[in-house]
Amino acid sequence: MSGFVSFVSSGPGDPELLTVKAVDRLKKADAILFDDLSSGPILEHAGPEADLVGVGKRAGRPSPKQNHVSQLLVDYAKTGAHVVRLKSGDSGIFGRLEEELDALKEAGISYEIIPGVTSACAAAAAAGIPLTRRLVARRVQFVTGHDVAGALPGDLNLQSLADPGATTVLFMPKRTFPELAEKLFETGLRRDCPALLAENVTHSDQTLTRTTMEELAAQLREEVSPAAGLILFGELAET
Amino acid sequence: MSGFVSFVSSGPGDPELLTVKAVDRLKKADAILFDDLSSGPILEHAGPEADLVGVGKRAGRPSPKQNHVSQLLVDYAKTGAHVVRLKSGDSGIFGRLEEELDALKEAGISYEIIPGVTSACAAAAAAGIPLTRRLVARRVQFVTGHDVAGALPGDLNLQSLADPGATTVLFMPKRTFPELAEKLFETGLRRDCPALLAENVTHSDQTLTRTTMEELAAQLREEVSPAAGLILFGELAET
Repeated sequence: MSGFVSFVSSGPGDPELLTVKAVDRLKKADAILFDDLSSGPILEHAGPEADLVGVGKRAGRPSPKQNHVSQLLVDYAKTGAHVVRLKSGDSGIFGRLEEELDALKEAGISYEIIPGVTSACAAAAAAGIPLTRRLVARRVQFVTGHDVAGALPGDLNLQSLADPGATTVLFMPKRTFPELAEKLFETGLRRDCPALLAENVTHSDQTLTRTTMEELAAQLREEVSPAAGLILFGELAET
Repeated sequence: MSGFVSFVSSGPGDPELLTVKAVDRLKKADAILFDDLSSGPILEHAGPEADLVGVGKRAGRPSPKQNHVSQLLVDYAKTGAHVVRLKSGDSGIFGRLEEELDALKEAGISYEIIPGVTSACAAAAAAGIPLTRRLVARRVQFVTGHDVAGALPGDLNLQSLADPGATTVLFMPKRTFPELAEKLFETGLRRDCPALLAENVTHSDQTLTRTTMEELAAQLREEVSPAAGLILFGELAET
């Protein structure tokens, strides 16, 4: 008897932003494998008999453990269990979903993917900003601010990120932001382009800081801070 | 006594992809203003006394009624009602949210925005495709395929859409897709770039068609079809 894996997107953190389907799968799970970022009150939906397994990976650090997580997922499923793999935000966006999918396919284990509320949408909603607007912002893009080693990726499409007709959300950007901002200014983005720094979105300690690209770059050059949080920029950020 | 408006993102259509918070607001609403695309079983969460008001706008058609919708929202709220403005997908993405927000601000009516599952994430999840992948797709972008008149917008950033390092999701693209595809080929996108046509995502009549940009453009050149549906393209579309 072979088990089943539900990839469950947990949303940005507020347990009320779980989908109805996500709650259902958490309640039914025999085992829940969760990351640091998606834990807390969300796990209260688990049944009393469920195994809760933290497999936390931290943003910006190299993650030698990815293979280990995939193997754990396969091992749990092979016991015949209904396994929930809980991922923060939407599992398809910067969730390294593909590596775990590959492992399950190789092992012949069935799965489903339950989409969720991405933190980018939650940050915009919390700030009262739409991500698109007729004529002004016809394109919205989500980009990661670091590669596996925690550095700014060398192959970013700067022209597309400096486009004044787009709204851009940078995931996990804080460490590399000053370097990126400088490159974007060189590519033509205006230094006073409106920006929003969103931290701990939908959590009780949420902060939303309205600023500009230039001011934010200066601030983050000084600040020794973890990589968490989102930066949203574009004309809509000053709405 | 002044009312309150909750902008509630209804997700892609499956009622189980509503968030817990969305269900709560639907249950408590005195009035629910909904679009055609976000109706059906989702409205079953409404209480027996709630006013259900269809304000359907159809994609691709000019929408002279936007002012009317905003006015209706203001009028309902002014009766002291708790009004839910239900929008399909995530309300911040191609939902023309800003026009209704502006009307409420002008009238001094308080509101909240509840983010939801965007159809782009739901389409990818249904197809088993992550929207990002380390090294291969560090950027994901959502773009609309039509302007207010239903034509291909003239100011699209083609270089950014033809980028092989991105995953792109076109919203409401079918009518203008052949023209856009031709422009993207000229900009350097390969003709056999993997593409996915996703229609009625998460509904019982969902269809997912795996194809290439060139084949899809040829198919849609022949087909007289409404503008609904999403097209996802990029290397990940063949996962």
